[in-house]
Amino acid sequence: MEPDPPAPQDATDPVAGLARALERFAAERDWQQFHSPKNLASALIVEAAELLEHFQWLTEAQSGRLEPAQRAAVSEEIADVLLYLVRLADVLGIDPLAAARDKLAKNALRYPVERSRGHSRKYDAL
Amino acid sequence: MEPDPPAPQDATDPVAGLARALERFAAERDWQQFHSPKNLASALIVEAAELLEHFQWLTEAQSGRLEPAQRAAVSEEIADVLLYLVRLADVLGIDPLAAARDKLAKNALRYPVERSRGHSRKYDAL
Amino acid sequence: MEPDPPAPQDATDPVAGLARALERFAAERDWQQFHSPKNLASALIVEAAELLEHFQWLTEAQSGRLEPAQRAAVSEEIADVLLYLVRLADVLGIDPLAAARDKLAKNALRYPVERSRGHSRKYDAL
Amino acid sequence: MEPDPPAPQDATDPVAGLARALERFAAERDWQQFHSPKNLASALIVEAAELLEHFQWLTEAQSGRLEPAQRAAVSEEIADVLLYLVRLADVLGIDPLAAARDKLAKNALRYPVERSRGHSRKYDAL
Repeated sequence: MEPDPPAPQDATDPVAGLARALERFAAERDWQQFHSPKNLASALIVEAAELLEHFQWLTEAQSGRLEPAQRAAVSEEIADVLLYLVRLADVLGIDPLAAARDKLAKNALRYPVERSRGHSRKYDAL
Repeated sequence: MEPDPPAPQDATDPVAGLARALERFAAERDWQQFHSPKNLASALIVEAAELLEHFQWLTEAQSGRLEPAQRAAVSEEIADVLLYLVRLADVLGIDPLAAARDKLAKNALRYPVERSRGHSRKYDAL
Repeated sequence: MEPDPPAPQDATDPVAGLARALERFAAERDWQQFHSPKNLASALIVEAAELLEHFQWLTEAQSGRLEPAQRAAVSEEIADVLLYLVRLADVLGIDPLAAARDKLAKNALRYPVERSRGHSRKYDAL
Repeated sequence: MEPDPPAPQDATDPVAGLARALERFAAERDWQQFHSPKNLASALIVEAAELLEHFQWLTEAQSGRLEPAQRAAVSEEIADVLLYLVRLADVLGIDPLAAARDKLAKNALRYPVERSRGHSRKYDAL
């Protein structure tokens, strides 16, 4: 089960390159059987929780000035979330960067600068 | 509070380009005050849950063949997770793509092909 | 598929009473087919995220003085988490109150008063 | 900072008894300072993720027949979720059992037996 060679766009889209590397990683280990969208979405939230765990007892201010060891651990959790997100999007045939750009454009309409200034989304949305 | 002009690497790193766009988005709305790492990690897991919610009552097989409307909704949730992830990483000064590549290299050592074939990570890790 | 009549201990264990009501609720709607532990654990975390969402942009101090409408919404999310937790435990044949008491006793040994005073778990655990 | 003596209802409400034990546990360690609703809601979802992690790579059928060691680990995670849920509700002055009973009554109206039979909530809600 040899994965396809890297697609031509990989050179300019590093996220697509990561998706191909993850596909190869799963194929080599015969792990595609575990990679249903349902399972990958579960694995993603579990990693998001491991990320949040680093901050749960910190004040907001403390969360902005991590010690090097904790920053390195946080960096690994960010990596884990991104890996599962890219893998999930790839299994579903979704381009996550294009989806993010579309959503940001949508949010710009949803939260006009003048009406949103200084209010958190939550309050704005209520 | 004008954001910095795009850094030179943006042309070849679309994730860094997204980080700059998100920084500008927050600055224009005076939302940086809400964007502590602690808060962003919470917002990220909330979006990860909205993503998982689409799959929670589906079988694994059903989760792989979504109807167009549900696929579009899932795509938006993937976008939301990526937006918060990129923003969180940026606030912490972490390059998420580099972190993901490092972690994938680490995982390749941790789960050697021969010993990992056909076993889920979970069982392998036990 | 008529559920069993309430067990005698229900009178003194309100959590067991809730488990019986939930079993009946699922049976009447033929929803037991969806209530695998895997699915219920997903539904539980989705509700936990809806709970967290109320607090994500608040300061810690603000989170302790909710307006009546927000407090009522939070109360409903707490209810949803408890309902799925009781249902999941019941499907697995686990008594959640007994498990909680056992864990609290274990935590008392793990975090001795003198050594734990004033430190968050996280730091203590490191 | 001596906690109040157990309230009279503890004898018949084991959840209130647990809330009092948790309050004492926190007071003895001077941990109330960390127990803002915001922080407790984060800790709760982190425990919900540790619970989900046990099931993420299992099939639904496998999730219903755990080995004794895994069942014991799951039981501890259920305990952790319940402990944080009871503590969070107590800090907010919410009775979680009463809230759960109210919500179940509301759900019975929202999902009438005849219209809901055999459909998952998700589809029903759409």
